[in-house]
This record gives sequence, structure tokens and C-alpha cells, in this order.
Amino acid sequence: MAPMIVLFTDFGLEGPYSGQVKTVLHLTAPGIPVFDLFSDLPPGKPQPAAYLLAAYGAWFPPGTVILAVVDPGVGSARGAVVVEVDGRWHVGPANGLFELVARRATRVRSWQIPPPSAAISSSFHGRDLFAPIAGDLARGESPVGRLCPEGMPRRPDWPDDFPEVAYIDRFGNAMTGLRAAVLPERARLATAGQVLTRRRTFSDVPPGEAFWYENSNGLAEIAVNCGRADAALGLNVGSPVAILP
Amino acid sequence: MAPMIVLFTDFGLEGPYSGQVKTVLHLTAPGIPVFDLFSDLPPGKPQPAAYLLAAYGAWFPPGTVILAVVDPGVGSARGAVVVEVDGRWHVGPANGLFELVARRATRVRSWQIPPPSAAISSSFHGRDLFAPIAGDLARGESPVGRLCPEGMPRRPDWPDDFPEVAYIDRFGNAMTGLRAAVLPERARLATAGQVLTRRRTFSDVPPGEAFWYENSNGLAEIAVNCGRADAALGLNVGSPVAILP
Amino acid sequence: MAPMIVLFTDFGLEGPYSGQVKTVLHLTAPGIPVFDLFSDLPPGKPQPAAYLLAAYGAWFPPGTVILAVVDPGVGSARGAVVVEVDGRWHVGPANGLFELVARRATRVRSWQIPPPSAAISSSFHGRDLFAPIAGDLARGESPVGRLCPEGMPRRPDWPDDFPEVAYIDRFGNAMTGLRAAVLPERARLATAGQVLTRRRTFSDVPPGEAFWYENSNGLAEIAVNCGRADAALGLNVGSPVAILP
Repeated sequence: MAPMIVLFTDFGLEGPYSGQVKTVLHLTAPGIPVFDLFSDLPPGKPQPAAYLLAAYGAWFPPGTVILAVVDPGVGSARGAVVVEVDGRWHVGPANGLFELVARRATRVRSWQIPPPSAAISSSFHGRDLFAPIAGDLARGESPVGRLCPEGMPRRPDWPDDFPEVAYIDRFGNAMTGLRAAVLPERARLATAGQVLTRRRTFSDVPPGEAFWYENSNGLAEIAVNCGRADAALGLNVGSPVAILP
Repeated sequence: MAPMIVLFTDFGLEGPYSGQVKTVLHLTAPGIPVFDLFSDLPPGKPQPAAYLLAAYGAWFPPGTVILAVVDPGVGSARGAVVVEVDGRWHVGPANGLFELVARRATRVRSWQIPPPSAAISSSFHGRDLFAPIAGDLARGESPVGRLCPEGMPRRPDWPDDFPEVAYIDRFGNAMTGLRAAVLPERARLATAGQVLTRRRTFSDVPPGEAFWYENSNGLAEIAVNCGRADAALGLNVGSPVAILP
Repeated sequence: MAPMIVLFTDFGLEGPYSGQVKTVLHLTAPGIPVFDLFSDLPPGKPQPAAYLLAAYGAWFPPGTVILAVVDPGVGSARGAVVVEVDGRWHVGPANGLFELVARRATRVRSWQIPPPSAAISSSFHGRDLFAPIAGDLARGESPVGRLCPEGMPRRPDWPDDFPEVAYIDRFGNAMTGLRAAVLPERARLATAGQVLTRRRTFSDVPPGEAFWYENSNGLAEIAVNCGRADAALGLNVGSPVAILP
């Protein structure tokens, strides 16, 4: 499979950040296609992003390089890693962002990226540290840095599924960090004082009615047909979601 | 003319949807350029989108494949079509989105896309059903599905021009669904309790003054020089616009 | 260095404008990569954009063509220019947008673009006038128009550094038009009734604390660790920023 590079960040598309990252990728790995998976992840929150990455990154073919940056600790001593999982490469900060990708994988290898030179920016490692590495990997180079025999730093305290709203999309739908496949078929979700039943898709419920469904990447998602679930139910990133069997 | 693929959707760019669609297009039709025409159409509203598509899609050269998805009925029994109009291909739901494109064309052919397999997502036909078809068409393949001798489902009840605000852009300008070329030269537009006269462009009126003009794709658009028409006049998508001759 | 084209505009990405510009660039200069540097510049304000362009454009390699459009006077008699500075090409309106690029350069050449034909749009010169010129330059063609021996129109009244907030990014950080390198090492910045000290990066201050730092393109930027500076301090584009030595 020909390689591709996928961006998974909280950088936004309209300001300078994603465009500069893409320029570096082009200069490092000319001709390799780059796709925006998420560019508006909840700013500075690696935990919800980690559950989204596990659900959405696995959709891409082996050989894909995922440049994942949600990095509130940029410029500090937090580590930086390359993680290879089932043929997909991940590059980014060692802050838990790859925890669920690794936990659900059959084979994980990780490399510790050496501390960057003082010459690079202290606030934009996405452009100055991670993008050149992602470009090199996409061109087929071996990872830089030290292979970690013990594996990358892990977050055993994080649950297997995340009972919170992890992302609200442009339609007002609220993605949770819960995999629909691990929920009982008749499970209801309780959030913001309401109890929601499972439906197959939007057109299965009357306009204005709230429900939850398995979204197109396997997450339990809260929605309102012909409406905005965030506004109708008062949901935000971080709203807790309880499972009622 | 070398083909290109154009996206015309309500998916947004920053979340996962447009990026996943572009990934499928790349895997189906590698090397064919993809452009975002509109990615923030009013969510779930095929009618205003139909008038925008007729105005903006015709700007692209013959051979272009337009992937158009504003699809509140996704997952229901609503049909799906390929529509060829004057050398341009259109792929999307059979919900009226192509009504004005077809009505204004000199030659229309349409194909009914077979119902999708149960294996694909019920909520993201843009990625799972329409994008592979758009990619195949861009590579020069013939349309799948049954040619409709009687033509695709039509919306004879929709007017030739749409007397409402169809889209509000980043500057606060309000595009209507009215073609400027069919309006009397001295027509005024009445909306939100105000009567607006026609001007050529922004710099022809004093700062702060509201007016209407023929926009760069031929639609009557309501604007305020150095200001936001939506805020100044209280306009929203769906605000009625009356023509005063 | 292989050429690239960079977009620096207030057009937004989600509506039709950037996509149409990219389509024209593709038709004019097929195969040359196009990157979005800023697409959400403060609408209609060439002055703050001029300082951002000087800071961010210089990051790109020689040979780059920068299509810069913040153009409130579109359709009026305002001039249009091609400006070559240290091997980078700039195309856009002659409204001050290139003032700081030119002022900080070692060598500047400029060409006056002839007035456009009446056949093109009066409201979208980015697509109809500037994009074809940018595409031609990227293909290696010589600039059209008359070389200005006296140089392009200048704005000697604009300061060398701009003591205002010029842009607020998706994280709520407020970029100023001040180069950090010209400020005293211990300079404090006063804005919105607060006095801010300089730090190296976010993780050097406690969560919730406001500070300023040299951003990844050399501008003084006001930020709050794990928070939004715009909301916390009440900053907007145009908020004055004073330097306290």
C-alpha cells in the first residue's frame, strides 16, 4: 500500500499551524498525500483525543503515518515517541495520546525521540520536531531514536472506554469515548439528566428526538434527528456519560 | 480536460468527515485533484444547497465530478443518483439537491445507484457509498446502476429561483438563491424590513451601507461595505427575500 | 528549490472562495503544491495582515509564490502588484499588504498589474485576477505588467512594529505585530490593564497564568497556559499593546 500521512491535531486549519506542518511534510516527503483527520480536537486535552485516535486511526490502511499532536506540555521535558502498531506509524508527544492505540493492538513497538535541539521552537514541535520525523517515516526511513524495549510510557489508570463526551462535531453530535461494540445491545446512555436509547441512524427517529447510535467509526454517539444534540441536551466535551444496561 | 473532483457538502473541514472522504477518493482515484467548493453548507438543508450548486457547480470545466452531499435522510430508503449534465458528473442523494442543476441544463442523464450493502455505515454514505462512485467516475469509468429513462426524481414544486437567504459567508454576506441575471436591472430586494438597491461592488457604497450586488457566481448577494450584513440586518439562512421591481 | 504557492487571505476555507482560488491555481499551474498559510485573517484589514505576512512569509523558501489577498477595495481603482523580495514572489492588492515585507528586505522589485478587463468579477480578484498571475509565476513565467522603477506605493506612516493584537488563534493566543527580537530581553507588555512578563513557553508558567513569549515565527504573542488569553484578558484584534522596558 502506498503510504499516506494523516494529521490528527488541535491546530485548526485556518490559522498558520496546519499549513506550516503540511509545508514541512511536503519538503520532507514530496508527493506523499496528506489528509486531515481531525484538526479541531479539544485544545490541549490528550485523553479524549486518545480514544478518538484509537477509533479513527485504525480506519486507515497499514503503512499510514499518523502525525498526532495534542500537546499542552510542548517545550517541557515531556517525552516524544514513534509508535508502530499493526503496520501503522504514529508520531507525537508521549503524553498518553497513543495509550488506547497501543492497548488495543496485537503488536506494538515504540521509539523514544531524542530531545530536540535548542534551535527549534519551544512552542511548535508539530512543525519543527514531529513533522520531519513523520515525513521521513512516510518515505520509508527507519525511526530515529532509541527503541524502547520496555515500551513507551503508559497510562494504566485510563479506562478501556471513556465515559465522557470526547468531541462535538459541526452538526452538534456528541461523540463519546465508548465503543458501541462493547456495550450491551439494549444499553441506554444517561447524560445531562436524560436517558437515551440506541437507534440505527438519524432517519429512524422523529425530528427533534435524541438518541444514541454507533457512528461510522464504531463510537457511541449522541445525536438529535434534524437538530443539535449539544444544544438540545446541554452537552460539552467532558460531559459524563453513564451506561445503563 | 483532465478530470477533477469537487466536494460540495455540509461536512465541515475540521472534523473527520471531509478528510475521510478525501482518503477514499485518493484510494479510488489516486492522483486526481480534489477541491473543496463548499464544506459548510447549511446542515441538513438540500433546498438552499440546490440553488448554490446550480450557481457554483457550472463554474467548473466539463469532466469535473461533483460529490454533493447534504443528506438528512442518510440510511433511509431515499434514493441515490449519478447525474450527468453538460459534461459534468454529480453524485449524491436523490433528495432534490440536483433539481436546479438538471432544470437549467440542456442535456441530463441520470442513473439510479443500487441500494448499498448492509455492510456500510448507515450514517456516512458520503464516505462509504458516494466517494467510491465519484472516484470511479473521475477515473473515466461508466456509472454504476440503472440508467433512468424517465430521469431522476424531480421537485417541480421548487421555484426556478429561491427567494431566501441560502448561505451566509465568513464576511457576513448573505447569498440568496436568486440569479441576478433574471432580476430587473433596477430591482430592489426587500428583506428583514429593509429595501436594498443594487450596486456593482463593495467600494461603490459608503462604509456601513447595505446593498445587493451580483456576486462572482451570478447570485444576488446582500452585503454591507466594511461590515457584516447578517448582523446589521438580522439575516439568517432561510430569511425571505422579496423582489421589488 | 521546486516552487510552491502559499495562500494568505481572509477568505476562509469552508465557503467557496479558497476552493475556487485553488482550482484556478491548478488549472494555471498543474502539479505545483498549494498551502494555506492563513485563510482567516481579520476580514478587510490589510494593516495587521502586513505584519503577519512579514513574519510568516519569510519562513518559506525562495521561489515560493505568496498569493496574499486582504482586499476591502476590490473592484475600486486601488492598484495591484507583483512584489519580488529576496527570491519570494508576492501577488495581491497595492493597499499596504506588502509594506513590511518590502521594508525589511534587502532587495525589492515590483510590477504594477494592469487594470483588469471589465469581464472579470468586481468582487473576487483573488480568483479572477491574482490567482492566474500567481500560477504563471509559479510556472516560472516573468511577471506581467510594468516594472515600477520607483517601487510600489508605500506606507511610510506605518510603524516598523505594530503595537496591537494582529490575530487571535484557535487557542485564544493573541499574536501582536511586534517582533520579539527587537524588544528588550526583559520587556513587559501592557494590554487590557495588565502587565505581562516574558516566558519561554507555555509549560514554564502555572496553569491559568498570562504571559508573553516569542512565538514560532518570531512575533510577541500573548498567551495563558491551559487557557484562552483572549477571553481571560478581554483581547480582540486591534487591542493596543504597550512595551514597558
